[in-house]
Amino acid sequence: GDRAQLIDGKAIAATIRGEIKDEIDRLRSETGGEFNPGLAVVLVGERKDSQTYVRNKKKACDDCGIVSFGTDLPDTATEEEVLEVVKKYNADPKVHGILVQLPLPAHMDEEKILTAISIQKDVDGFHPENIGKLAMRGRKPDFVCCTPKGSVELLERSGVEISGKSAVVVGRSNIVGTPAAMLLQERNATVTVVHSRTKDPERYIREADIVVAACGVAEFVKGEWLKPGCAVIDVGINAVDDATKKRGYRLVGDVHFDSAVKVAGQITPVPGGVGPMTIAMLLQNTLEGAKAARERGE
Amino acid sequence: GDRAQLIDGKAIAATIRGEIKDEIDRLRSETGGEFNPGLAVVLVGERKDSQTYVRNKKKACDDCGIVSFGTDLPDTATEEEVLEVVKKYNADPKVHGILVQLPLPAHMDEEKILTAISIQKDVDGFHPENIGKLAMRGRKPDFVCCTPKGSVELLERSGVEISGKSAVVVGRSNIVGTPAAMLLQERNATVTVVHSRTKDPERYIREADIVVAACGVAEFVKGEWLKPGCAVIDVGINAVDDATKKRGYRLVGDVHFDSAVKVAGQITPVPGGVGPMTIAMLLQNTLEGAKAARERGE
Ligand SMILES: NC(=O)C1=CN([C@@H]2O[C@H](COP(=O)(O)OP(=O)(O)OC[C@H]3O[C@@H](n4cnc5c(N)ncnc54)[C@H](OP(=O)(O)O)[C@@H]3O)[C@@H](O)[C@H]2O)C=CC1
Ligand SMILES: NC(=O)C1=CN([C@@H]2O[C@H](COP(=O)(O)OP(=O)(O)OC[C@H]3O[C@@H](n4cnc5c(N)ncnc54)[C@H](OP(=O)(O)O)[C@@H]3O)[C@@H](O)[C@H]2O)C=CC1
Repeated sequence: GDRAQLIDGKAIAATIRGEIKDEIDRLRSETGGEFNPGLAVVLVGERKDSQTYVRNKKKACDDCGIVSFGTDLPDTATEEEVLEVVKKYNADPKVHGILVQLPLPAHMDEEKILTAISIQKDVDGFHPENIGKLAMRGRKPDFVCCTPKGSVELLERSGVEISGKSAVVVGRSNIVGTPAAMLLQERNATVTVVHSRTKDPERYIREADIVVAACGVAEFVKGEWLKPGCAVIDVGINAVDDATKKRGYRLVGDVHFDSAVKVAGQITPVPGGVGPMTIAMLLQNTLEGAKAARERGE
Repeated sequence: GDRAQLIDGKAIAATIRGEIKDEIDRLRSETGGEFNPGLAVVLVGERKDSQTYVRNKKKACDDCGIVSFGTDLPDTATEEEVLEVVKKYNADPKVHGILVQLPLPAHMDEEKILTAISIQKDVDGFHPENIGKLAMRGRKPDFVCCTPKGSVELLERSGVEISGKSAVVVGRSNIVGTPAAMLLQERNATVTVVHSRTKDPERYIREADIVVAACGVAEFVKGEWLKPGCAVIDVGINAVDDATKKRGYRLVGDVHFDSAVKVAGQITPVPGGVGPMTIAMLLQNTLEGAKAARERGE
């Protein structure tokens, strides 16, 4: 039978990273070497997964010509010390983006630390003022959260029309579902946000031209729930036990891929869909931050 | 046949204003006269309607024991002068809420002036940081916009269950539709936002347990579109020509009342529904601002 067209996030992310590198090279040479976007990554504690994420982000910066700065603090660091680091980077004109790797140790007030980041360097787009501006008509946030931004970029680069369409976002977290809904609405989709307290989620999903799944529940959205021909963006990354794999598990999304691929018109795979876009958007945000700083004459 | 129960906004607003007065009286006497909530209203220009709104707000403050401050500037005032006034009130410990009456003259940057209001005195709830916090899980805005807050208060005081229900908000403005959707979602409704680019709005409205109409189109939502028994909050205020009236017009909502009242379970009239709630919520926000300032030891 028919199968959905795969949205190749890995290839699209590679294209975007190439575009970013080219633009940085061009601006650097136009300015006689003066244009040097910089990203500062703050890592607190020794979590292995966080260390890997930070390493990957720094490597991605290197690849496209973004200067990366880093401060690693021990688990025992105080909130005050982290705030000092953030303040230092806020004041540093070589730094255009600041990223505090989450989660922070439990004894720290995440909200306080994230809100201390200058909104003009908030490349993660987590600051409430940036979220508020994203929600508002006629306002422009300095930055948009990377994963939802990457999700919408995948739709746009795959030629999926958003304006006038109905969209369902499954999940309403601050960093994925909520900003994804805002971005789709900004592009004139009619958006419904489904969450854990929604009765009968398939009732909404069945009518949607676009489905963004970000609920953190492995294979939650079934193919039978989908409207034939719809576009599916699967943000989920879940490890499920799999004895046939060397590592003992495999990664699946928040969509039941095997059934969904038979109904959807377009679909992202997991892995290789939204995942690679998140870092590409972080690089893009850092470049945008550097360009905005230059326009402000900094 | 059956008719919907009317949600009497006038009566509910009067009850709330009584509660506010009682709480202020109590706190004032508990503090030996030290507790004096203050609202500052900034009016620029000579628009008759704006002057009436400002007069009504000040009168409402008087009635419940809120001290009102006011600065009236001419149409010819500069943006800088308005910003100076805002700054003065930001710094004034007797002022717990600052309201800049909209619209501002065309030569002023509304965004810049509204964003200059301290978020801790932003009783209109228009600051992007307050909107962002309203959108986010686990964050609390200092203030919530008055009209949407009043709309949800009407539902709650009428015993309409919100959690687990489906809601449609018609309209996505910064001051009504968007925050109304956020408030309903916070209370665990599954919310769809319909706007001018939505194809087939009745398709969404037909399925909704709760409809909030805020599109500024007279009698837009028809009774035939409604799910029997649903709750309808009509935010609209539109003047339509009516030769049988002395003034030559009458006020109607964004819902076609005569057909809707036959299908809905509960409905707000226009006038006398949401309208009176807006000022009541402004008073409530000012009281909350004064209580928060007191807790901060100001
Ligand atoms: N590709 C990437 O780079 C990234 C991928 N992710 C992945 O995306 C997914 C979502 O992440 P995140 O937003 O951080 O997750 P959160 O756990 O923060 O949020 C999950 C959301 O889904 C909702 N939800 C939970 N269960 C259900 C259910 N049964 N039905 C409907 N809604 C439900 C929750 O509702 P409620 O609010 O009611 O609790 C909540 O809003 C995860 O799989 C995560 O691994 C996340 C970030 C980056
Ligand atoms: N009771 C009270 O105290 C108050 C009442 N009001 C009343 O509430 C109503 C809304 O006010 P406000 O939010 O400021 O208005 P705006 O004009 O700022 O916003 C109207 C919204 O409705 C949408 N819309 C317009 N036409 C249609 C249509 N045909 N179908 C679906 N959606 C449509 C617009 O969509 P798009 O974004 O695509 O343009 C927009 O989002 C008005 O009637 C106003 O008088 C307002 C404030 C206070």
